[in-house]
Amino acid sequence: MEFIKNALGRMVPAEINGRKVKPYAGAFNDAASGGRKAAPLIPRCFPGRVNKVIGSIDEVLDRLPLKNGMCISFHHHLRNGDFVVNMVVDRLARRGIRDIVLAPSALFPTHDKLIPHIESGVISRIEGSMNGEVGRACSMGKMKGTATLRSHGGRVRAIQDGDLHVDVAFIAAPAADCFGNANGVLGKSACGPLAYSDIDSQYADNVVVITDNLVPYPCVPWSIKGGYVNYVVTVDSIGDPSKIVSGTTRLTKSPTQLLIADLAAKFVEDAGLIREGMSFQAGAGGISLAFNVCLADRMKKKGVTASFAHGGSNEILVKMLENGQLKYICDAQSFDLEGVRSLRENPNHVESPLWVSYNYHAKGCLSHMLDVGVLGATEIDLNFNVNVNTHSDGLLLHGTGGFPDVAAGSAVTIITAPSFRKRIPIIRESVTTVTCPGELVDVIVTERGICINPRRQDLIELTKNSKLPIKPIHQLMEEVYAITGVPDKVEFDDRVVAVIEWRDGTVIDSVRKIK
Amino acid sequence: MEFIKNALGRMVPAEINGRKVKPYAGAFNDAASGGRKAAPLIPRCFPGRVNKVIGSIDEVLDRLPLKNGMCISFHHHLRNGDFVVNMVVDRLARRGIRDIVLAPSALFPTHDKLIPHIESGVISRIEGSMNGEVGRACSMGKMKGTATLRSHGGRVRAIQDGDLHVDVAFIAAPAADCFGNANGVLGKSACGPLAYSDIDSQYADNVVVITDNLVPYPCVPWSIKGGYVNYVVTVDSIGDPSKIVSGTTRLTKSPTQLLIADLAAKFVEDAGLIREGMSFQAGAGGISLAFNVCLADRMKKKGVTASFAHGGSNEILVKMLENGQLKYICDAQSFDLEGVRSLRENPNHVESPLWVSYNYHAKGCLSHMLDVGVLGATEIDLNFNVNVNTHSDGLLLHGTGGFPDVAAGSAVTIITAPSFRKRIPIIRESVTTVTCPGELVDVIVTERGICINPRRQDLIELTKNSKLPIKPIHQLMEEVYAITGVPDKVEFDDRVVAVIEWRDGTVIDSVRKIK
Repeated sequence: MEFIKNALGRMVPAEINGRKVKPYAGAFNDAASGGRKAAPLIPRCFPGRVNKVIGSIDEVLDRLPLKNGMCISFHHHLRNGDFVVNMVVDRLARRGIRDIVLAPSALFPTHDKLIPHIESGVISRIEGSMNGEVGRACSMGKMKGTATLRSHGGRVRAIQDGDLHVDVAFIAAPAADCFGNANGVLGKSACGPLAYSDIDSQYADNVVVITDNLVPYPCVPWSIKGGYVNYVVTVDSIGDPSKIVSGTTRLTKSPTQLLIADLAAKFVEDAGLIREGMSFQAGAGGISLAFNVCLADRMKKKGVTASFAHGGSNEILVKMLENGQLKYICDAQSFDLEGVRSLRENPNHVESPLWVSYNYHAKGCLSHMLDVGVLGATEIDLNFNVNVNTHSDGLLLHGTGGFPDVAAGSAVTIITAPSFRKRIPIIRESVTTVTCPGELVDVIVTERGICINPRRQDLIELTKNSKLPIKPIHQLMEEVYAITGVPDKVEFDDRVVAVIEWRDGTVIDSVRKIK
Repeated sequence: MEFIKNALGRMVPAEINGRKVKPYAGAFNDAASGGRKAAPLIPRCFPGRVNKVIGSIDEVLDRLPLKNGMCISFHHHLRNGDFVVNMVVDRLARRGIRDIVLAPSALFPTHDKLIPHIESGVISRIEGSMNGEVGRACSMGKMKGTATLRSHGGRVRAIQDGDLHVDVAFIAAPAADCFGNANGVLGKSACGPLAYSDIDSQYADNVVVITDNLVPYPCVPWSIKGGYVNYVVTVDSIGDPSKIVSGTTRLTKSPTQLLIADLAAKFVEDAGLIREGMSFQAGAGGISLAFNVCLADRMKKKGVTASFAHGGSNEILVKMLENGQLKYICDAQSFDLEGVRSLRENPNHVESPLWVSYNYHAKGCLSHMLDVGVLGATEIDLNFNVNVNTHSDGLLLHGTGGFPDVAAGSAVTIITAPSFRKRIPIIRESVTTVTCPGELVDVIVTERGICINPRRQDLIELTKNSKLPIKPIHQLMEEVYAITGVPDKVEFDDRVVAVIEWRDGTVIDSVRKIK
């Protein structure tokens, strides 16, 4: 395998899965730019009344042009409660389809059931996010092809620009009509926006809406537009929406995490960012949710109203919207059922398709309108590079999420993380994997101190008289190492099992097989 | 000029404006199908906060790549109150730009001011709809190029499929933010949906939002998404929204028109079409509005609720929505200010982008879900062919509107028209221009009798015992001719000044210069 050194000094393969790799060249260098968007097939007109309803997954599979090597896509709005990914892949496996390129917007523990299909070659590789055991299987070299991890915005860009061609998009829909209009806010499986599937519906050759709640035409709101949909399939249940509150979306009770959240909110206040019309996003994860609570308190004391928060919506943001602290929630996914309810009921809670939120190759995107973005990390290094994909043992356990999109867009990007976890330092000399370059990371907040990126002299200046425990990142690392010891280097195999793609389609880092 | 005879026996030029013509081959033959959608340029990412606001039209013109022969587009939501088309074309003229291809979704009498620009060659041709004096100028041969008239859905298809490439889309917006998100429901110039511009925003190389109401980010609802927009220009006023109630959108007081409307509603009832969950559309025009009133009465008596009406929204539909006779209004344009208010306030009044409503080359469109479509006409012939573009004197005075899209989609298409106007027969042996083929026209309702297309034996059967004045179209024509005399043949010049494009991109008829 031939390698190229990219602008961050990381070695990336010259080619993966038969496709030439463009090495990362800088956050806004846009090294893969130029050209034209993918041009979907022009559908043929069909006369007469439209009814696309088909009674079972198997009947729709009978009609689809199935083939080995096909790419199928899914959204992750049902998170750990999703039934649809496994349902479809199982049936494709039974039909003998192999070498599937799986392109979900994310996977969750419930999708661990895919591992036998990875091992048997039914799934050749994943292009999208992986969480947990599927990522571990990838790290162990069980995937035939090389996985590509993209940010949420990077996934949109890849589909739009034609780097990721989807043969069939399967869209789990809590409500749909016979025409294929669909939304995520009505019905027993209501999960909030269907914002991740918007781009799939526009560009996939075939679009299948899978619903457990067929409603009379027109299904309003029509988050997914029937004009893009080929088939509507009815099933008993698409998922268990109570499980969208899972993993990274629960409010923390950990004193360390609460301390970090409070420090981050204090930093935001001391840096003068709590002001009328401010905007913010704090993603999933216990600290981020706690940060929302702390921020809301400080905003209330100052009598400040925010113009908008970008969701992942949750009950804290909904409360802020309802009590007037927030004018709008622009929402790409719901992290709890209060978020779902609010999106359904409140006209100031708006669904934001992912290309609106995060697309690098649009004429601007919503994340670039954010004042403050608060994000988590598995590792942070002395150059402020951030890893959210692998653990320090090298295992690929997390998807990229919206991290790079928010970090690139927010006027101030704040990483909240404990300084170490289970005696493994989070702050370290070099990250195992670079998900996001340090040039986009402004502030690190840990329970042991706050570090400001030297590039942000403005923030250093603004907070120089604050009582915050601000210190150089080198010093913080030394303190951490004094507790944890200097971490051992992980031993990797030569084989690249996955690449981390930057928002623009270049490759920022490689993930190697665990020895 | 070389001509081809199309499937309706009409002679159409083999080539116009240097482009090969595909002759019409049948309503659903889809003779221009195949291939891929237009592939817009991939925008370059720009770092940092987004602010696209520019203080004047001239400043934005300084930044745009202006050139002779460029294609510029506009929506017609402000109808006869629009200020923006004239504003932009005047300035381009002053800059010496020539041979402009003007692609508005429609033009109104206020745009008569464009005629000097047509005569001087600033505008080379119009691709879109023309009403009134601009159409007359075209008929008189004053346009350098050959105009193309498309239905609303045909325009969407042409842009989507790459037949009509827009260099700059100018979008008049009653509300917009600094990012380019825009809607038509807020502000002093509120005009309802911005549904016609949706496709332009997606496919044009450059998109300029022109607003007289800059609102804080985010502008919600975002009918136009800022991710497609290059510039936002602020002006004093984009138009006079009181004039959206103009021309074809006033309720009639004419006894003849009221009689026709009532007969049409009776026909709908007698044919068994007034039933729970029904759907309908009656376009602009006095008779159509009166039909809505008559239909509402009959629905009320039967206790029937309609699933949806497709707008042109107006106060009658709004009343039906508010009193529960209608579950949804799916709305592509507002015909009065009650329509605007309802769209702003009522979540069951939804904006329907034109490609959702009418696109021939989507996987179905909304008009194909209609039970009943009621439409007007300037002429109807013995084969049920309909003309809405030219008058019997050959003058091109009307745009195509959504006629073909609704006629092709509705389960029952009803034409309401007086049997003659000013001693000119509407029912005649052959129409001057074919806008829509008779195969899609089911019923003609005039004050002098109702004709059912012999293709619709089902409707003939359903209404055979009704007391409606149903008669063969030949008989109706004879009755009319007995009053008006047999109409003279119009004398045309050889030159084709415009073609009428069918929904699929084929040419259904030619319009010749008036002698």
